[in-house]
Amino acid sequence: MKVAVIGANGKIGRHLVHLLGKSDHQVRAVIRNEQQQPDMVKLGADEVLVADLEQTIDDAVMGCEAIVFTAGSGGHTGANKTLLVDLDGAFKTIDAGVVHSVDRFIMVSSMMADRPEQGSDKMRHYFVAKGRADERLRESGLNYTIIRPGRLTDEPGKGTIMIPDNKETFGNIPRADVAATIVEALEMEHTYRRSFDLLTGDIPIAEALRSF
Amino acid sequence: MKVAVIGANGKIGRHLVHLLGKSDHQVRAVIRNEQQQPDMVKLGADEVLVADLEQTIDDAVMGCEAIVFTAGSGGHTGANKTLLVDLDGAFKTIDAGVVHSVDRFIMVSSMMADRPEQGSDKMRHYFVAKGRADERLRESGLNYTIIRPGRLTDEPGKGTIMIPDNKETFGNIPRADVAATIVEALEMEHTYRRSFDLLTGDIPIAEALRSF
Repeated sequence: MKVAVIGANGKIGRHLVHLLGKSDHQVRAVIRNEQQQPDMVKLGADEVLVADLEQTIDDAVMGCEAIVFTAGSGGHTGANKTLLVDLDGAFKTIDAGVVHSVDRFIMVSSMMADRPEQGSDKMRHYFVAKGRADERLRESGLNYTIIRPGRLTDEPGKGTIMIPDNKETFGNIPRADVAATIVEALEMEHTYRRSFDLLTGDIPIAEALRSF
Repeated sequence: MKVAVIGANGKIGRHLVHLLGKSDHQVRAVIRNEQQQPDMVKLGADEVLVADLEQTIDDAVMGCEAIVFTAGSGGHTGANKTLLVDLDGAFKTIDAGVVHSVDRFIMVSSMMADRPEQGSDKMRHYFVAKGRADERLRESGLNYTIIRPGRLTDEPGKGTIMIPDNKETFGNIPRADVAATIVEALEMEHTYRRSFDLLTGDIPIAEALRSF
């Protein structure tokens, strides 16, 4: 598959470009800043495309078979960026997927995006933005998988995860394992049109994705 | 008509409750803070209902024939409130309108909401929030009117307005005239399923609404 990674220079994005570069897939790294281009090639990108999510990003997904949206302000930048990137940038990317018939779409969402009213005052707007983007993707007709990771860490990937089956389980997940989960899910039918929380755990990624 | 005013204690909301209170319509003032209740009754509200747009507001519109959404952070509060109130609060109100079959919906939007990419860095997130809410309303199936006023002032209402037919005209509009335009538009079929910019001008409100 030819995969457009939106937010390729983000922390998850960089893991993802590297993993996709080593796989049978082709990867188009979509970045905001031209100066990141050599770095993306070094990581394993087959193509690099510069696009600004706050403007138009239509071309960024054209000709691909899958989109991974992992651009984001992470909840710690200004809330104006949360609105412009996490919500509006996601809306634009989903719409571009529909227009250009890029059927497969994996969204890197966030735990709590499906229940923002339970979020802290400080984080609620972020969960709302992620949740509204997820909603739009679900209603888009695209073949989606929505992954809602717990608190992201920079620890080395373990290759094992947990997909909790209740809402009482909280925890961390290394960004490397989120990226590995995305790669594994890309063509796994059991994940099509589904949404799930994602934490670190002891189950090999493929096994966890086949059995949740 | 029984009209739910969402954001009744806002500056436009207060004008609107007062005008609707004097009209043949019935007005339900929807406010966030219980302590505003006596004031709303004094202004002319037939009913007062306390609801928080950041939580669930389903009951706020039930049993009404029209909704006016004029809640908002105005672009000068934190961007997290823009996301939670102007965008998410509007989404919830539109969805509640659909669920409870409240067919008529007037949105107080903002000039530039239909072209946020032209907005200043400081205001762009606000225009995006208003524009996404307008988009959702247009796609809701409800009988909408979207009013995009220019810069709001607290000057006395003139009773005369302008609906510019191009995008090069900027200007002000007293909040009192925005409220009067809403009341006039409520049952005027020429405004159904239409969106327009609104500025102060020299044309009587009803005439301007009939002829744009």
